[in-house]
Amino acid sequence: MDIQRIQAAAERLKGHARVTPLLSSPFLDEIAGRRVLVKAECLQHTGSFKYRGARSALSALPEAQRMSGVIAYSSGNHAQGVALAAQQFGVSAVIIMPSDAPKMKIDNTRALGAEVVLYDRATEDRDAIGSRIAEDRGLTLIKPFDEPEVIAGQGTCGLEIAAQAAEMGVTEAEVIVCCGGGGLTSGIALALESKAPGMRVRPAEPENFDDVARSLASGRIERNAASAGGLCDAIVTPQPGNLTFPIMQRLCGPGLVVTDDEAQMAMAQAFARLKLVAEPGGAVALAAALYHGDQIEGDTVIVTISGGNVDRPVFLRALEQFGEG
Amino acid sequence: MDIQRIQAAAERLKGHARVTPLLSSPFLDEIAGRRVLVKAECLQHTGSFKYRGARSALSALPEAQRMSGVIAYSSGNHAQGVALAAQQFGVSAVIIMPSDAPKMKIDNTRALGAEVVLYDRATEDRDAIGSRIAEDRGLTLIKPFDEPEVIAGQGTCGLEIAAQAAEMGVTEAEVIVCCGGGGLTSGIALALESKAPGMRVRPAEPENFDDVARSLASGRIERNAASAGGLCDAIVTPQPGNLTFPIMQRLCGPGLVVTDDEAQMAMAQAFARLKLVAEPGGAVALAAALYHGDQIEGDTVIVTISGGNVDRPVFLRALEQFGEG
Repeated sequence: MDIQRIQAAAERLKGHARVTPLLSSPFLDEIAGRRVLVKAECLQHTGSFKYRGARSALSALPEAQRMSGVIAYSSGNHAQGVALAAQQFGVSAVIIMPSDAPKMKIDNTRALGAEVVLYDRATEDRDAIGSRIAEDRGLTLIKPFDEPEVIAGQGTCGLEIAAQAAEMGVTEAEVIVCCGGGGLTSGIALALESKAPGMRVRPAEPENFDDVARSLASGRIERNAASAGGLCDAIVTPQPGNLTFPIMQRLCGPGLVVTDDEAQMAMAQAFARLKLVAEPGGAVALAAALYHGDQIEGDTVIVTISGGNVDRPVFLRALEQFGEG
Repeated sequence: MDIQRIQAAAERLKGHARVTPLLSSPFLDEIAGRRVLVKAECLQHTGSFKYRGARSALSALPEAQRMSGVIAYSSGNHAQGVALAAQQFGVSAVIIMPSDAPKMKIDNTRALGAEVVLYDRATEDRDAIGSRIAEDRGLTLIKPFDEPEVIAGQGTCGLEIAAQAAEMGVTEAEVIVCCGGGGLTSGIALALESKAPGMRVRPAEPENFDDVARSLASGRIERNAASAGGLCDAIVTPQPGNLTFPIMQRLCGPGLVVTDDEAQMAMAQAFARLKLVAEPGGAVALAAALYHGDQIEGDTVIVTISGGNVDRPVFLRALEQFGEG
């Protein structure tokens, strides 16, 4: 993995992925005690950064292989990204999703033309289901994070952060990234290593699913005790990836860990101050910036709001419990 | 008023106003029956397009005059725009606001350093209050819409629409603009007349406050019967402006009128499909595109979401009543 691969992905994504804005609010600066810049990936196509990696991976496939169709497993954001990219290329997509994934994510994935296969997280093995279908139908698996062209696609978000921050005169900052398997985190870190070497990437995770923070601390891949639960479905993964972890180990850390309540408080702030809809997992980086400032250095912090695909009742509850006014 | 004035405003706003994104969703296209492009001005500084006009007007003042301070009357979005621009220039601002303005708007205006003077819409005359304070303190009035440099500032939104749409290959479209006094509508219309002559601007208003639609139909300035009420506080004005009306008469129409329920339905769609927070008055153009398609021509419609400063209970109610999922 290197910067050339990310730049090549950026070329392929041009005119397809959105350049999402880097936003700010004086009210957030005040809470955080420093300048906060927010990369609004919830405004990406399909409502999360995942479209970048999905489109990157599909566009990198040899045409004949792509035409045979693709398969992916995902709790919902990668699902929608792959579904849209497949629809744009006119190829079929099968998506394996947990039956307890947010309704909006399942509905959207279907509406984008994908065939959704639901499985039970507790009793079924998604890898086994996926492998069987892939083999039966000759589909190519698009992994959610541990795949070079996916990491390269997510890295294009880092190219944008470097350019947009530089335009604001910002070349040094901690960059907090919502982190599941580490695709976005490692992609952004690689991009910034080359384009904004004064920035340091910090993964943010929810309590009880802080495998990356613990792995970075111990120096080896650590697993989460639980495989599901909490509010932050988008970034609940069992462990960092075999490709993403060495990149994060070299370039990122230490990890930041927030509670579900803090994620919801950040959702309420994104609503009131940025006019953005953030999903819980997409709000953990903002939560870290706002409520764990003592663990952050420097005058400026940059955070991703990595997704906004939240079911209405979950959003309403966050605003009711943690909103102001 | 001409395009040069808008371009001069754009120069002055460079590096200050945000270039807001032009967004879309296949789900909105499906409801509307045509392609829908959404100019997300709720992402502008202070949460509405009003910052453009305010910064334009303040930056156009002779320095000595600006240093003496400014005054404005506003239900809240112009208030915040003027407050922020004044704060940036280090000058004092007095804002006359109705006591029933949304709490968020009053709080934010104060937090941005302005002195807020509340008045009772039913019993007091804001012009009289404003004139007295302006004279006593030597402040310059920044009118909310009927002022050339304000119109020019709002027109920069039209320059962006023309450029962003052209990049997507769109040169012909109806452009629906949330319309109060007509500052944004006339500014965008002037910009598009020059930069995208294949586009036509349509003002959108809430039921019972459709003074612009009626004025365009009758050919003379018509007033609203009520001076307050309904959900769309941001765009409830008594009548079109003396400067804005002739521009709209020459370039815009016919007007589109939506109900408060339709505005709330559009808020729920902006939440689910765009991950944006729209205030009721900021959602009327999207509502027109989604629910009055029979009055719209062509394959593509462009709409402004002109603001997102909505009190939490109002937003919650819209989502509870009109959201899906």
